[in-house]
Amino acid sequence: MKVINLDHISSNPLLPEVKAAMIEAINADYANPSSQHTPGEAAATFLEKAREQVAGLINSATPKEVVFTSGGTESNNHAVKGVALANMEKGKHIITTNIEHNSVIRSLKRLQSQGFQITSVSVDEGGRVDPRNIADAIRKDTILVSVMHSNNETGTIQPIQEIGEITRKNKVIFHCDAVDSVGMVPVDVRQLNVDLLSFASNSFYGPTGVGWLYIRKGTRVFPMLDGGVQEGNKRAGTENLIGIIGMGVAAEAAARDLKTRMAYLSGLKEKFLRALPDYVTECIINTHPEFSLPHLVSISPRYIEGESVMLMLDDEQIAVSTRSACATGSLRASHVLLSIGLSHADAQGTLVIAFGVDNTEEDVDTFLEKLQKTVKTLRDISPLYQKIHGAG
Amino acid sequence: MKVINLDHISSNPLLPEVKAAMIEAINADYANPSSQHTPGEAAATFLEKAREQVAGLINSATPKEVVFTSGGTESNNHAVKGVALANMEKGKHIITTNIEHNSVIRSLKRLQSQGFQITSVSVDEGGRVDPRNIADAIRKDTILVSVMHSNNETGTIQPIQEIGEITRKNKVIFHCDAVDSVGMVPVDVRQLNVDLLSFASNSFYGPTGVGWLYIRKGTRVFPMLDGGVQEGNKRAGTENLIGIIGMGVAAEAAARDLKTRMAYLSGLKEKFLRALPDYVTECIINTHPEFSLPHLVSISPRYIEGESVMLMLDDEQIAVSTRSACATGSLRASHVLLSIGLSHADAQGTLVIAFGVDNTEEDVDTFLEKLQKTVKTLRDISPLYQKIHGAG
Repeated sequence: MKVINLDHISSNPLLPEVKAAMIEAINADYANPSSQHTPGEAAATFLEKAREQVAGLINSATPKEVVFTSGGTESNNHAVKGVALANMEKGKHIITTNIEHNSVIRSLKRLQSQGFQITSVSVDEGGRVDPRNIADAIRKDTILVSVMHSNNETGTIQPIQEIGEITRKNKVIFHCDAVDSVGMVPVDVRQLNVDLLSFASNSFYGPTGVGWLYIRKGTRVFPMLDGGVQEGNKRAGTENLIGIIGMGVAAEAAARDLKTRMAYLSGLKEKFLRALPDYVTECIINTHPEFSLPHLVSISPRYIEGESVMLMLDDEQIAVSTRSACATGSLRASHVLLSIGLSHADAQGTLVIAFGVDNTEEDVDTFLEKLQKTVKTLRDISPLYQKIHGAG
Repeated sequence: MKVINLDHISSNPLLPEVKAAMIEAINADYANPSSQHTPGEAAATFLEKAREQVAGLINSATPKEVVFTSGGTESNNHAVKGVALANMEKGKHIITTNIEHNSVIRSLKRLQSQGFQITSVSVDEGGRVDPRNIADAIRKDTILVSVMHSNNETGTIQPIQEIGEITRKNKVIFHCDAVDSVGMVPVDVRQLNVDLLSFASNSFYGPTGVGWLYIRKGTRVFPMLDGGVQEGNKRAGTENLIGIIGMGVAAEAAARDLKTRMAYLSGLKEKFLRALPDYVTECIINTHPEFSLPHLVSISPRYIEGESVMLMLDDEQIAVSTRSACATGSLRASHVLLSIGLSHADAQGTLVIAFGVDNTEEDVDTFLEKLQKTVKTLRDISPLYQKIHGAG
């Protein structure tokens, strides 16, 4: 029996055209793109083609602003630590929010232990940052603001363009983690007023372990990987050419299919949200009703454990997640959900559902039925639920 | 016409079994290994299988000592910067050699700008470090020694085991960049007395952009990529699973075929070195006669430019390199060759020839003929050569 994958935030199947391009690259035995002989030069053309493809997806002024990395985590580490270390004579104050990905939060903690000061701005109950709070937090020694484009647990989209206007006016460098947005909603680096954006290929049906960091021309940032002259001296290391070729094709497909993809995914999500109350009562919706990713929805069916729901659905061949895959194994409630005001119990009862282009309307129907059954089973044995609703 | 690849240090063709495993992984659409549902757990088993395969190649006490990275450059940055930042209360002095790869040299320069002190030990004319010089350089505040296993430009192998005895006696952490040795000569982490070793998959016919860092249990080192809980909290970021699976298969093949591979490659190298004087006069051999990689030889045919030789051989469908691909574009003479006592002119006249399992004895014959022709053509128009040898 085929598994219904409703966890497209942790991983995505590769597009058929991405698979074909990667298999072709594997069979072609390309040389090192930095080698000066003809096979090396040929390999370099494939690298540069992919750079143009990803630059096109985000409307970068030039492909030279694209620095290939090993994924979203490296991009975020590079941006945050690279800007901090390159600009510390100007100041050591950095502004962020309470709901960032761990790769930003823990990079900032690392910097904190090196004498940097961090201001972390709260979000409202809808999970959004008020740009005025960012403006108020800016000091004379602020060198960097880092705010994510969309949250990987709730799908809520932030007012990046407005924050970018503020950072630009204050001459503060602005980094945005756009890992979960790219290929799902339009991301235009020029419109957004950002200086650095992080991306990962697997967010838009490309391979894992590859991504890029957009660095606007003129932005002062140190490399994180020091060494060879690759990537215009911005990121050393022989490139993951097979992965980068796959990512380039995925980026071109995302640019081409963005509107269709958004319409299809938001159709599945709306169908699910419309029907949900008929299947599960007392269920909190954590995703912003207006500003959110088309494919992601976070729900908290009350009085039960999200992990139990996930495991029971897994037995029914349905894959969902309870939180960021990067935080698996942590027993603590999600910092993102606590930040939007959920109680510990409700946060622990949360499911993240992320639809993908491989899902069908039937998948949504099957999921709703199985979810109803699972929630009922768990509530029947939940002391909390029984206490509140009585045993009959 | 097929290109004869004699540049197996910059890149290597993938083994057929590596290609097959990667293509299978591409078509299988594995989930995120950190996801807790069944597809995630299945993906994790492939990750752990690869970890066992690479651990086996280096005789690691446990696969838990293997941390997957994006390649040799990340492994070197992680080791050097991670040890420095995690042990700086003990001291800020680090010892290295003059012939390290740029990813070690530039990581150390980065640390120098953060207050660390670096002692760089010289090598002898054969390109080897004297372990006594390392011992003499150790101070009370020395926290790290970093010496490469073999050099990527000369192929010379260092006395790592002896250096490891010294560092162990002095309770100093020992890192070794073994990128160009692994899969070519035996590398046994327990025999070598090292605490950290860097590896790259493409050195042994695996894909580029993937490698690992061996971290001996108990070694104090910070992650370089902060974020999620992947790799036992030692390296965050969703893994490049397709690349890692390919690397695992390449590692298993390397362990299985090491002896045959060494015999075959050193056969090609010996054939070449034996015949070379009959084809090219006044040619310096930069590779150590006893302690060197089986497949690599560095030669400096005097009075001509290595880059011109490389380009003319390229026209003849033969790929060689003049130096590390990571240093392409640099106009300066190689720091490695200057360190072993070459003049600037001879250093600029150097060719790095790296044989691979796909080369044949006929390739060596063809190369010798083309090299003879090329060197003659260039010497005929070399003012320096004409001045010394007269115009006839």
